[in-house]
Amino acid sequence: MGSYVQAGVGQVPVYQSGTEVLQQLQEKWKSTSPAPCTAMYSSVFGGIILDPAMMLVPIDDHMVHRGHGVFDTAMILDGCLYELDPHLDRFLRSAAKARIGSPFPRDKLRSILIQMTAASNCRRGSIRYWLSAGPGDFLLSSKGCPGPAFYGVVIPTEYEQCREGVRAVTTSVPMKPPLFATMKNVNYLPNVLSIMDAEDRGAFASVWVDEQGYVAEGPMVNVAFVTAERELVLPAFDKILSGCTAKRLLALAPKLVEAGLLTGVGTRHMTAEEAKRSVEMAFVGSGLPVLPIVEWDGQAIGDGKVGQLMLALSDLLWEDMKSGPDRITVPYQ
Amino acid sequence: MGSYVQAGVGQVPVYQSGTEVLQQLQEKWKSTSPAPCTAMYSSVFGGIILDPAMMLVPIDDHMVHRGHGVFDTAMILDGCLYELDPHLDRFLRSAAKARIGSPFPRDKLRSILIQMTAASNCRRGSIRYWLSAGPGDFLLSSKGCPGPAFYGVVIPTEYEQCREGVRAVTTSVPMKPPLFATMKNVNYLPNVLSIMDAEDRGAFASVWVDEQGYVAEGPMVNVAFVTAERELVLPAFDKILSGCTAKRLLALAPKLVEAGLLTGVGTRHMTAEEAKRSVEMAFVGSGLPVLPIVEWDGQAIGDGKVGQLMLALSDLLWEDMKSGPDRITVPYQ
Repeated sequence: MGSYVQAGVGQVPVYQSGTEVLQQLQEKWKSTSPAPCTAMYSSVFGGIILDPAMMLVPIDDHMVHRGHGVFDTAMILDGCLYELDPHLDRFLRSAAKARIGSPFPRDKLRSILIQMTAASNCRRGSIRYWLSAGPGDFLLSSKGCPGPAFYGVVIPTEYEQCREGVRAVTTSVPMKPPLFATMKNVNYLPNVLSIMDAEDRGAFASVWVDEQGYVAEGPMVNVAFVTAERELVLPAFDKILSGCTAKRLLALAPKLVEAGLLTGVGTRHMTAEEAKRSVEMAFVGSGLPVLPIVEWDGQAIGDGKVGQLMLALSDLLWEDMKSGPDRITVPYQ
Repeated sequence: MGSYVQAGVGQVPVYQSGTEVLQQLQEKWKSTSPAPCTAMYSSVFGGIILDPAMMLVPIDDHMVHRGHGVFDTAMILDGCLYELDPHLDRFLRSAAKARIGSPFPRDKLRSILIQMTAASNCRRGSIRYWLSAGPGDFLLSSKGCPGPAFYGVVIPTEYEQCREGVRAVTTSVPMKPPLFATMKNVNYLPNVLSIMDAEDRGAFASVWVDEQGYVAEGPMVNVAFVTAERELVLPAFDKILSGCTAKRLLALAPKLVEAGLLTGVGTRHMTAEEAKRSVEMAFVGSGLPVLPIVEWDGQAIGDGKVGQLMLALSDLLWEDMKSGPDRITVPYQ
């Protein structure tokens, strides 16, 4: 039999009621820097909460202890939500693949997210939202959970269009199997370890190359290339996440073909060897929207400077975010 | 521009203060079935909380939104914690692999878990505990998080030694790469989908067989076989989780060799084809501790009845849980 009290470890406080704990958290938030999110919606609470002390989720929620949750995002720019609908569509596809239902129909999810954004008063940043198998027990299967849960947060960020180039490195952290890479779920430990690997090596982010040598994706972004023939190529989406920003880029890029700047636009499998001969390269993702890569694994891409075609593509996306057709004006009070 | 209010969706309540939300949750818990856990420890709260309404974790915790967390367990039987130390050792190995630190040294983590169990007054069930990259932001890398978080819960369960046989099925849900299978982290969506697949097919749980045809593990348990030569064989732990109960079984099983019931005990790679010719098969995991499998993929194992050697092995483990050397008497008040 072991002894339980170690020297110097001491007594841990026991709280009978949550009220005292909440008061402590509220005190703490008064003296600390702003919370990372300014509004949260929780179907468990049944409303939008503006108090950072209570921006919490049940520990028995299966998203917390089993990773049984999916998520998606949307950017807020100039008080508008950009491309919420395609993100919501992907969100519900991810949930179906992960066998997670929704406590509400799609139009209610959408309305909640818009109301949450309005309540936050945030004009620039992003929203993130999750569907979870829900709280109920600590088992593996969700069959004992009373029902799925829906959460959302508003994250203010003073982001700007990226115009400086960054470095990328190929990571040795294993890729997810395609089933899990193509559904946007919270099992992001491979992504976390791959970006931390990149940071250790002085890069902005990592790139996954699959076992066959084909370029896959970054840890939370897609990658894009301009070949020597001035063709815009993105890796095919069959084994990686189908990025909403990447898809919008593919829809807008033909304008540069019409203008004679690009010769073509498409997705296909591309080996890393071929990709490294590109004249321009970039990360593509909401909030960037196009981040030029000037060096990959220590090797210059093109002439090692920020590519003009990637900047032109970035301008197309940024313009679309500022004044394009898929923006929802947030009804702030 | 889209319109934001859909017919019939309605206004979502907005709570300025968490106090009202907490009161609602406290009211709800008065009228619902017992909470799945009877005590929780949180390093964010700095104590043990007995109020189910406040058994919550911050939504900006990277374990919640990125799966950047590891966990482990220990069983409570007759008011004792069984094999806490080997589980804690594995826990800290998992954390190191996942690049998660700890807010406290090992002896304090251990003491907190024992004090939490005492405060719960639970005599039979289990504890589960997590180290997380911690709250702080919604990014991918944990470099912006002020520090790691430690959480624990006590889960009462009236479990008994399993003596009935169950069915198993091979799952087509992809396995995790070895790096992630060998560290016990919360990215359990593959495990969730594989057990739900098994449940759909009328089985207790699934078995993973790797691409080379070798038996791997179950979704939250190891598997064990008694061959026609009466050798106890478990799949090698190089690509799967090194189960604490499985390791204890391997340590105790030589008693059955001495008694002439088994001819040998070991771990090795074993094809599913060979494994299906076994005379006995079982799931092995804490809380079972040995669950005989009588049918796998519709094919009887041995004579299709509960195997006597697996029951004898189960007795060894159950006896060890009841009166073995690695038990900590919980200091209940």
